Amino acid sequence: MALITREKYIQSLKRMRPNVYKFGELITDVTTHPATRRTVESHARGFDAAYDSKLEELFTTKSYLTGDRIHRFNGLMKKMEDVIHNSKLKRTMYHLTGTCTGGLCVGWNAQNVLWAVSNEIDKEYGTCYHQRLKRWLLLAEEEGWVAAGALTDAKGDRSKKPANQPVPDANLRIMEKREDGIIIRGAKIMICGVAAANEIFILPSGAYDEANKNYAVACVVPRDIEGLTIVEARRPSDRREYEEGFDIPETGITQAYLLFNNVFVPNERVFMAGEYKYTGNIISYFSANHRACIGACVAGQGDVMLGAAAMLARANGLSEKIFSDKLTQMAVNNETTFSVGVGAIALGKQHPSGIWFSDPITAHTNKVHVATLPYETKRLCQEIGGGIVETGCLPSYLDLQNEEYGDYLLNVLKAGSVSAETRVRMARLAEWLTLGAGVPGCMHGGGAPDGAKIVVEAYTPLEEYIDYARRIAGVTE
Amino acid sequence: MALITREKYIQSLKRMRPNVYKFGELITDVTTHPATRRTVESHARGFDAAYDSKLEELFTTKSYLTGDRIHRFNGLMKKMEDVIHNSKLKRTMYHLTGTCTGGLCVGWNAQNVLWAVSNEIDKEYGTCYHQRLKRWLLLAEEEGWVAAGALTDAKGDRSKKPANQPVPDANLRIMEKREDGIIIRGAKIMICGVAAANEIFILPSGAYDEANKNYAVACVVPRDIEGLTIVEARRPSDRREYEEGFDIPETGITQAYLLFNNVFVPNERVFMAGEYKYTGNIISYFSANHRACIGACVAGQGDVMLGAAAMLARANGLSEKIFSDKLTQMAVNNETTFSVGVGAIALGKQHPSGIWFSDPITAHTNKVHVATLPYETKRLCQEIGGGIVETGCLPSYLDLQNEEYGDYLLNVLKAGSVSAETRVRMARLAEWLTLGAGVPGCMHGGGAPDGAKIVVEAYTPLEEYIDYARRIAGVTE
Amino acid sequence: MALITREKYIQSLKRMRPNVYKFGELITDVTTHPATRRTVESHARGFDAAYDSKLEELFTTKSYLTGDRIHRFNGLMKKMEDVIHNSKLKRTMYHLTGTCTGGLCVGWNAQNVLWAVSNEIDKEYGTCYHQRLKRWLLLAEEEGWVAAGALTDAKGDRSKKPANQPVPDANLRIMEKREDGIIIRGAKIMICGVAAANEIFILPSGAYDEANKNYAVACVVPRDIEGLTIVEARRPSDRREYEEGFDIPETGITQAYLLFNNVFVPNERVFMAGEYKYTGNIISYFSANHRACIGACVAGQGDVMLGAAAMLARANGLSEKIFSDKLTQMAVNNETTFSVGVGAIALGKQHPSGIWFSDPITAHTNKVHVATLPYETKRLCQEIGGGIVETGCLPSYLDLQNEEYGDYLLNVLKAGSVSAETRVRMARLAEWLTLGAGVPGCMHGGGAPDGAKIVVEAYTPLEEYIDYARRIAGVTE
Amino acid sequence: MALITREKYIQSLKRMRPNVYKFGELITDVTTHPATRRTVESHARGFDAAYDSKLEELFTTKSYLTGDRIHRFNGLMKKMEDVIHNSKLKRTMYHLTGTCTGGLCVGWNAQNVLWAVSNEIDKEYGTCYHQRLKRWLLLAEEEGWVAAGALTDAKGDRSKKPANQPVPDANLRIMEKREDGIIIRGAKIMICGVAAANEIFILPSGAYDEANKNYAVACVVPRDIEGLTIVEARRPSDRREYEEGFDIPETGITQAYLLFNNVFVPNERVFMAGEYKYTGNIISYFSANHRACIGACVAGQGDVMLGAAAMLARANGLSEKIFSDKLTQMAVNNETTFSVGVGAIALGKQHPSGIWFSDPITAHTNKVHVATLPYETKRLCQEIGGGIVETGCLPSYLDLQNEEYGDYLLNVLKAGSVSAETRVRMARLAEWLTLGAGVPGCMHGGGAPDGAKIVVEAYTPLEEYIDYARRIAGVTE
Repeated sequence: MALITREKYIQSLKRMRPNVYKFGELITDVTTHPATRRTVESHARGFDAAYDSKLEELFTTKSYLTGDRIHRFNGLMKKMEDVIHNSKLKRTMYHLTGTCTGGLCVGWNAQNVLWAVSNEIDKEYGTCYHQRLKRWLLLAEEEGWVAAGALTDAKGDRSKKPANQPVPDANLRIMEKREDGIIIRGAKIMICGVAAANEIFILPSGAYDEANKNYAVACVVPRDIEGLTIVEARRPSDRREYEEGFDIPETGITQAYLLFNNVFVPNERVFMAGEYKYTGNIISYFSANHRACIGACVAGQGDVMLGAAAMLARANGLSEKIFSDKLTQMAVNNETTFSVGVGAIALGKQHPSGIWFSDPITAHTNKVHVATLPYETKRLCQEIGGGIVETGCLPSYLDLQNEEYGDYLLNVLKAGSVSAETRVRMARLAEWLTLGAGVPGCMHGGGAPDGAKIVVEAYTPLEEYIDYARRIAGVTE
Repeated sequence: MALITREKYIQSLKRMRPNVYKFGELITDVTTHPATRRTVESHARGFDAAYDSKLEELFTTKSYLTGDRIHRFNGLMKKMEDVIHNSKLKRTMYHLTGTCTGGLCVGWNAQNVLWAVSNEIDKEYGTCYHQRLKRWLLLAEEEGWVAAGALTDAKGDRSKKPANQPVPDANLRIMEKREDGIIIRGAKIMICGVAAANEIFILPSGAYDEANKNYAVACVVPRDIEGLTIVEARRPSDRREYEEGFDIPETGITQAYLLFNNVFVPNERVFMAGEYKYTGNIISYFSANHRACIGACVAGQGDVMLGAAAMLARANGLSEKIFSDKLTQMAVNNETTFSVGVGAIALGKQHPSGIWFSDPITAHTNKVHVATLPYETKRLCQEIGGGIVETGCLPSYLDLQNEEYGDYLLNVLKAGSVSAETRVRMARLAEWLTLGAGVPGCMHGGGAPDGAKIVVEAYTPLEEYIDYARRIAGVTE
Repeated sequence: MALITREKYIQSLKRMRPNVYKFGELITDVTTHPATRRTVESHARGFDAAYDSKLEELFTTKSYLTGDRIHRFNGLMKKMEDVIHNSKLKRTMYHLTGTCTGGLCVGWNAQNVLWAVSNEIDKEYGTCYHQRLKRWLLLAEEEGWVAAGALTDAKGDRSKKPANQPVPDANLRIMEKREDGIIIRGAKIMICGVAAANEIFILPSGAYDEANKNYAVACVVPRDIEGLTIVEARRPSDRREYEEGFDIPETGITQAYLLFNNVFVPNERVFMAGEYKYTGNIISYFSANHRACIGACVAGQGDVMLGAAAMLARANGLSEKIFSDKLTQMAVNNETTFSVGVGAIALGKQHPSGIWFSDPITAHTNKVHVATLPYETKRLCQEIGGGIVETGCLPSYLDLQNEEYGDYLLNVLKAGSVSAETRVRMARLAEWLTLGAGVPGCMHGGGAPDGAKIVVEAYTPLEEYIDYARRIAGVTE
Repeated sequence: MALITREKYIQSLKRMRPNVYKFGELITDVTTHPATRRTVESHARGFDAAYDSKLEELFTTKSYLTGDRIHRFNGLMKKMEDVIHNSKLKRTMYHLTGTCTGGLCVGWNAQNVLWAVSNEIDKEYGTCYHQRLKRWLLLAEEEGWVAAGALTDAKGDRSKKPANQPVPDANLRIMEKREDGIIIRGAKIMICGVAAANEIFILPSGAYDEANKNYAVACVVPRDIEGLTIVEARRPSDRREYEEGFDIPETGITQAYLLFNNVFVPNERVFMAGEYKYTGNIISYFSANHRACIGACVAGQGDVMLGAAAMLARANGLSEKIFSDKLTQMAVNNETTFSVGVGAIALGKQHPSGIWFSDPITAHTNKVHVATLPYETKRLCQEIGGGIVETGCLPSYLDLQNEEYGDYLLNVLKAGSVSAETRVRMARLAEWLTLGAGVPGCMHGGGAPDGAKIVVEAYTPLEEYIDYARRIAGVTE
């Protein structure tokens, strides 16, 4: 039995070596420190869900490896339904937390991609990556590990390849290959959910040629591995996480800079070490499923915005019926990114290794929408919510508690049938979702929309479409 | 063996009683008359496809009733894949014809809806509609019938129900129930593909109560049934269909007004006659699959626009690379309506009778996009194509042939590597697609987008979303 | 007194040599021939307006040259108000006719541009173009001439300059300079309002270098000048103009191909003949005022669509209140292109010669909106109007008159409080406006939106904006 | 001579009674306290501009009252050009500060509105409000006062009028009229620039009837008047204002809650006290000029975003040319709100009292764009800037300074030709502009876009437009 409770999960994090920093301070316990406890709480809700009768079917599954009941985010995705469930799980996680739980997402996708690619590499080179991965997967399933995924390198000068960078640490690479493992060094950045993760799954961030083969590295490391320093990025309004009161919710997201300083990774955790020819496949498999499913993330967050907006209408003393058109438009936006993604999954196909990968042209089409529609959804949430959402234009918790004028404020802030505090809490939630610490970064996360457009263009059979036009127009030339 | 050739199909149309009119004239042979031969040609290409090695898998299928190979558009759709294939077939038909082949669409959907609803009605009322339908389906499969589908009534005053209309003929209803059949009367309007159809499948156009039970009628009639007068609507630039030359393509679409004048329909062709309680199900099953799949129609037409635009760029003496962003945006639009639809199908479920119906909220979301995105696609096609597309601003075929000045015109119209005639043909195609007779009417066809928004609103679980927001905001009130 | 009546205007057209063709046929009287009489009627309404107490102030003005009351479209525009009145006149002309009256637009702009540029040229080269133009203007004011304006050349291969074209006639140029005038040859195409014009004002269509100096030609010719053959382009649904009945309105637009076959233009009508250095100024002055004012054209047409949509809602048996949001969005679109244009005019400045020219960056910004917003306005008009507008899906006039089934049709087509005929007429108007012969071609007319974007980019002071950002960010580097 | 220096301005603020609070703390010196010094700095730059040779013409003007040179924001606006200069000044202030300087905006508009309305009231009631206002204006011009403007009441239950509110303090009203003045009480909220203001101009926030006549109050009070408690709202990322380092710029904006606790206002500062009939005019005059000019605010901020985005492209190691389309789209958005506003001004007219008011339909059209286009501009800024902008995903200043790992971070953060610090500063600026403390609140500030749409609808002459459609369609019914 490989289902883990929230408590066991939190214990596993407490046991780790402190190597996460923020504002120049070393965080000794990520589960209680204000900078990280919210993302841990968010992830913990994913474990709770395994024990919730309404959600357990979505949050657990039968292991393809052992037949045991496991957390779904530890499992392989071999059928179309598995990937659709990935999508639905993401949407539900946003319902539970309001923001991104990166530790239940990128690592999961990464292990599936590697399942396929290790198979391909082994076939060509006679390596044994697939078996190594399988062994790690068995462990991960058994322990219910949360695995963050790290693709994005710091990159440095965008006009140069990794090997030509003036600052070599701008990209993670193999410094040395030993008998028993590899030494890696460099920076992976903007990595979600690291503070809440047990493991970090590392993939190359681009398709490389031979000159860059040292950058063709895939492996998995414990979050607290020797030589790894983690610096959490500061995010919008993140100082509120250090305050008491209700100016910020109890859930959260983190994005980390990972500084690898000659880290030793033993062979059994290495799944690619120089086989640059397969880096392209990693990128294309990864992005297909990632971009199909990320539509569910923004849909889930949009659902919460929709709920917050409707609630705010009432809290402002109005009926949400007045905003029926706007709320429906929010729903249309949410269902669009969700269903374009599901469509991409349904149009996908099974890799020889058994993994289901989504259709690229529609998956990348989804990225275009993920990078635009949520902005309209946010705008509508702010429009319905009013000025108190648009800029969070409300007195702080401390002011509302002030002995001298707090009551005056609370008095005049009451508008609808709910209390002033409820109105403020809801406005702060909407602020947090639309321009606060809850903004997840889905536009650039997993690659920019311009890159997606290039894929759409590449997969559009232009000459074939010209041919249709020619035939219908009766052009014989 | 139930696969029919183009020739056999055309013969079947020639054998029918002339009852189709346009411009006040009775059309004696729909397969040769300029007003109707183009839509017949369009449908005929659907038969050709059954014999095309690249397309036969899409255009034929194994009958669930007999196990025989049949035209796909005659078959039941019991699996998710069947409905996805419906969607793909529509996109392909647009590739082959540039416009709507309604006879391969609405009737097909209607028979599947009736398969489910007749089952429901029979269960409650002990009727035998399902068996009747099955018998007709066996015939239709065997003969390879093209069946148009007629839902939309003339309606009359939108503020009144059918039974209260000052003009009763504004809606089709049962005038009399006889032992051996029913007498129907009233107008169904804007019906696509009638001129190219063997049969017309009739469904009620709304959800009715007892007072309107006579309007709860579903049946199927031969297109040339006694008492039925068909008047084809005039469409943009349709007079060109009467001209010689290349100002209009050889394919086409028709939309008809059906005037039923006390038409007798024998019992074996009647599948609902007063069971008003089930009219709501007809509408919701029909619209779910119709709106999921119509995204493929506009995608397919958009593909042809994309091809025409790229070709025009070249014909104008430019590289299509210059318009790369715009072409990609056209592709994004096309893939969006296609994949939202496929997503809706994948999120659907199987009816107890075996038919697969799409998920309503995402299917209706698709209708919103179908009613907007193609307008941007058309705009982009016109922007790339230039003024010769925007208003078709080119001399007519007759002027290009003129002895006196035709050569001057052709001379100065040559711009890129192709001939002036090719450039003109391509511009005329783009004009036809964007503001000519090729415009299919997908915004209102099968119901208006405002109706779709009402369904999206109804299926959005607002209180549930509010609850998510409340929990994340820590609101206990 | 230089105000002309409709009758006198029509007489002036009747007197001209027939040189206009359509469908291979020479049109002997443009004022009565079905292909051209509608655009003549449109322009005639501009003369009626001079005698309409509500409109006379807008449609007439005091000549800067003589102090006489003249038709506004004959006058110079020296003050900001003059150009705003140009804009308002255009919007009003659409209110009166529903479409473009090109003869009251491009020539008017052209003469003002030449007023400025002839001044510049004369200063540098000691020519006497300005005096020549003044003399022609006095005549034009006195006669109340309608002057079409012709810029766009056929162009040929877009990758080559005029002088390098394989087909020299693709661009109009000076073939020979004589003592008493010039010989010109080549094709100007897509020219609006020619059939309704007395004169045609010719400008170069690009900014040319010395190698192309023969293409630097500006002059004005009578429409019926010897050697000029005019072929009217065929437009959407234009065959309806040859039918009886109400399937098309009584007003209209034409777009012509002008084939100059060694036409002699006497010196007094030549205002530029080789001074290529000033072609750039012609383009930039012309486009600034044209693109500022074209926003009023699409606004005016949008107003008519708004009216038609509201009327159709009623004719369909609904209240227009249901569509309040959509109608308001149409109004927002209309007011946007109108007011961006007025803003551009207000931000403009006076040329040393006295002419007021609009601000380029905002004028060209307007072109971007003119090329997009009307598509949304049309979509909304079709959405409100219903399927009978979207594809004009209605029986033809001939069918509605048919003895056998005409009454049945009219009976079931009545929906609201108005008659079926009124409903049909209104739907045909909306069809004509959105995808019929009334579509004016404002996206490419006067240059494509991509060209406008290049101007916006050129006038955006990027380094200055970067500097603001640097200072606020405290960047000293 | 009434031009004031930055120093004199700051001294004037220092002299005031401390009555501004934030986070429960009384701010003793607004010019140095971290919560308010940035907005004071922003306003101070408006004084600097009066002494800048490039800006002095825009930032100063000749008083209509005295003929003296004064700060433009103290002056009356009697000519079209005056209001256009208001618009240009706003755009420039954003260039200088990046955000809203409310003290140079609403009070200025308010005094002009009152100039007109006091005139109207005096005419009807024989009051002497106009003279009182004139006297205050002379003082304000002389002292170079910064006057915030307060319209928005807390409102309370939106379904009830002020007089029926369960909490009377939800709206500001006259509690008592004395011989020498009035006593006012209630809350005005979301008021910009108060901390940087000398004076607060109070207007009613709605059009009231007799039952609400006590709410019909207009007056002006010193910011530090006895009985007024000011609580500054907390805004996105505002805790950064308390930190050292470069995670936030040196300029800023504040939005305050004003709690009036039986404040006595002497008669000479009261300009409306119960004349409810004229509250409607206040709202319509105010909103016309406010909504015309607010387009310049978002344009100015958009210009800074454009600059920041281009700079970030370079800092990321790319050329901004790659993003040419996106940058141009940003420019189009900026120029649109600017020029729609200028158009509204140009279409306005002069009030009998001499003040120029903008055209309502186009001014309110602008509000629709102001509430939408900047969201696209922000999205584009984030898209160009990358993930480091989208969520500000960068280590904090403290982390970059950290001895242990700060150098590693700075090393890998260098990408283009500029230093890592410059890249971080620029990203922080873009974060601040798009989802940080710099977001100004222009969607709801001065009224919500839905209200603007109602005005657009009201000013759209629907029946007139229907009439145009009827005439063109030949409908006589």
